Amino acid sequence: MKKILIIGAGRSSSSLIKYLGNHSNQENWQITVTDRDLDLAKERVEGLDNCEAQSFDALDPTKREEAIKQHDLIVSMLPARFHIEVVRDCIRLKKDIITPSYVTDEINALDTEAKKAGIIILNEMGLDPGIDHMSAMKILDHIKSQGGKMVSFKSFTGGLIAPESDNNPWNYKFTWNPRNVVLAGQGGAAEYIRKGQYKYIAYHNLFNRTEVIPIEGYSDFEGYANRDSLKYRSVYGLEGIDTIYRGTLRKKGYSIAWNCFVQLGMTDDTYDMQNVSTMTNRDFINSFLTYDLNKTVEDKLCEQLSIEKGGEVYKKLEWLGIFEKNLIGLQKATPAQALQKILEGKLSLDDGDKDMIVMWHQFLYELDGKSHQLESHMVAIGEDETYTGMAKTVGLPIAIAIKHLLQGKLTLKGVHLPTKKEIYEPVLSELEALGIRFIEKEIS
Amino acid sequence: MKKILIIGAGRSSSSLIKYLGNHSNQENWQITVTDRDLDLAKERVEGLDNCEAQSFDALDPTKREEAIKQHDLIVSMLPARFHIEVVRDCIRLKKDIITPSYVTDEINALDTEAKKAGIIILNEMGLDPGIDHMSAMKILDHIKSQGGKMVSFKSFTGGLIAPESDNNPWNYKFTWNPRNVVLAGQGGAAEYIRKGQYKYIAYHNLFNRTEVIPIEGYSDFEGYANRDSLKYRSVYGLEGIDTIYRGTLRKKGYSIAWNCFVQLGMTDDTYDMQNVSTMTNRDFINSFLTYDLNKTVEDKLCEQLSIEKGGEVYKKLEWLGIFEKNLIGLQKATPAQALQKILEGKLSLDDGDKDMIVMWHQFLYELDGKSHQLESHMVAIGEDETYTGMAKTVGLPIAIAIKHLLQGKLTLKGVHLPTKKEIYEPVLSELEALGIRFIEKEIS
Repeated sequence: MKKILIIGAGRSSSSLIKYLGNHSNQENWQITVTDRDLDLAKERVEGLDNCEAQSFDALDPTKREEAIKQHDLIVSMLPARFHIEVVRDCIRLKKDIITPSYVTDEINALDTEAKKAGIIILNEMGLDPGIDHMSAMKILDHIKSQGGKMVSFKSFTGGLIAPESDNNPWNYKFTWNPRNVVLAGQGGAAEYIRKGQYKYIAYHNLFNRTEVIPIEGYSDFEGYANRDSLKYRSVYGLEGIDTIYRGTLRKKGYSIAWNCFVQLGMTDDTYDMQNVSTMTNRDFINSFLTYDLNKTVEDKLCEQLSIEKGGEVYKKLEWLGIFEKNLIGLQKATPAQALQKILEGKLSLDDGDKDMIVMWHQFLYELDGKSHQLESHMVAIGEDETYTGMAKTVGLPIAIAIKHLLQGKLTLKGVHLPTKKEIYEPVLSELEALGIRFIEKEIS
Repeated sequence: MKKILIIGAGRSSSSLIKYLGNHSNQENWQITVTDRDLDLAKERVEGLDNCEAQSFDALDPTKREEAIKQHDLIVSMLPARFHIEVVRDCIRLKKDIITPSYVTDEINALDTEAKKAGIIILNEMGLDPGIDHMSAMKILDHIKSQGGKMVSFKSFTGGLIAPESDNNPWNYKFTWNPRNVVLAGQGGAAEYIRKGQYKYIAYHNLFNRTEVIPIEGYSDFEGYANRDSLKYRSVYGLEGIDTIYRGTLRKKGYSIAWNCFVQLGMTDDTYDMQNVSTMTNRDFINSFLTYDLNKTVEDKLCEQLSIEKGGEVYKKLEWLGIFEKNLIGLQKATPAQALQKILEGKLSLDDGDKDMIVMWHQFLYELDGKSHQLESHMVAIGEDETYTGMAKTVGLPIAIAIKHLLQGKLTLKGVHLPTKKEIYEPVLSELEALGIRFIEKEIS
């Protein structure tokens, strides 16, 4: 019998745990699901075979070591900054470990130690990072094996609302942490390279420098640039490529409206506003507009942002209730926190709503003197509010990797990402069987 | 004989040291001028009576204590972050100390200790902060003493180029640290209050939310908001005031052109650009513009910033050489550093150029049921490249305060700013005699 420890039973752990429970009899697994919140852990294992819920303080070194010791494979679903301690324990106690988070320099530096301990530290094993790497590398390796030369790679991913639940003017709902949505794109300029020219987009220009991404069978999407496109050159072995661009997908029309908040400074999270407890939605928006007693807040907004009163963008803003005179309802807030509070009243999921994950890659390459264009996309719709598209696409790659590790089919040691064939091939193949399928298309 | 120690012989120390030397025989002073750079210290004291230059490492606690011990009054002209150690020594050794820098919480917390030691820690004794406080408080105290009620206070200061040296399309030259000019306004939203409404201006909107400030005898100025207007309510005893707004002055037309750099993200100092060593001015600007093979860099710039090709703003940008194909000439640079390098080639002072300090206050108040408007302004032009307007306005208030302290006329103990009558009255009165004069005007 193999024993698996899942640390963290948050929203992204549901599909992972369900898969493990469903395969536990056949595979002879015993699964321990731990969380600070015992009720949450219990909820996750309810009705599943061979799964036990435990309350667990992952920050207590003694308790953590004790728990890790009793298992054969560890999955850390903790917030990324906590992985390092778990990883160090796993090296000392010689246990394989998987996380869905970006590998850090600190973890990368443990490669030799991990090899010496005979374990794998498998990172970036979720959706983005995770499925993005696997689905891109499968095609990149194929192009390379044919002797092709990559000239351009673009890749966009979005966590969105499914068409059947898409019923507001933003065509968007909070399907994950609203705070991250409000702060999206902050923290530095987006850097990428296009036809050999390095390009930099300041945060305040990010949402008006979007690209349209058409995906068959769906209304159009648009994408804004992620900060970190350049680093994927080395991750994907694309050094010297002319164009590389990664971004985030939204439904068309979202970004131009979101840009209004960015332009006015309403997504700033660096200072507390004054008099928040008595501030209404209308006061909030007005505090970013010029003073003019002779003009309404609505007119000042339209004038300052050059938007048409009553137009599409205006309607989106108005629908959120930003002009209304009700209290924000916070005692203390940065602009970003106040904005989030207003948005949560409108953009939160309703009962029964389903989410949707969309990923899209575009490959331009040269082969036998000819230019080729290949596009690949995946759409994953959630089953319900628990087994969401996000939970499936984050959790199932981890679950499949666990199976292959425990079956002894995956024998890599050291620090890894799923950019290697021996990892991505079996995982993508089983994901496809589970309905997470990429559709490839040659564009002529 | 009284002994004065000046720590730091940088550009802002020149007028201070000259005043001290010129008054040293009459006042029976001995002045020691210290700097890491002995040559600089020597240059400052050249030809002055009773002044000695020393090389000095202000960060060496033993040497610092030794030097402070041998003097009666200390002036720290070091970068602001180094004051605290000097202040601690002064408390221990019971020596009065003056700095031109903003008082910190750390220094404020030493008030009781300073009183116990029987010394004054006199901060913000330069131009801005310094003369701004003094000239404002003189009028504010007068309005208060008449029974008036302040409703609005605006204050703007600028370090500019004198009209006789103003010969470029920007009407601006670097009369002080160019890095600070490039980064001006960054680090958080500007906060102020207008007619009871709190207002916040994001950095990327700062340079298009300017006010025109007309000053008699000069062409028009414009001002953009400083970050910290609100804190002056408590500093000036203006709690409850409806409008308070502090800003920075430029010649009219500067901000709309500078805004181009801000809009494109060219003042960002948070990341290193790629391939800087081979980057031309033209590459630099192009890296912030969209990719479009069919358009020139000039056309893309005009399109993206909505500026007219050949218009005033365009001419300013073109004059700087940003479209030229010469190498920037740096090996490594953030956008802000690259921009600074380009600007230094054009906006640096020429031999014989004079600088100009402009300060302007506006007071709206109610007295005997009537509304009043009072404006007050000061213009200080540099004598030459050493005794600049900046050096005079920073150094002379300190020098005058030294005289009053050593003559025993200023007996305050503890941590102080020059907002108190016993400080600002004698200082302003002597500044006026030295040609740094405020002109007041009632507006009907």
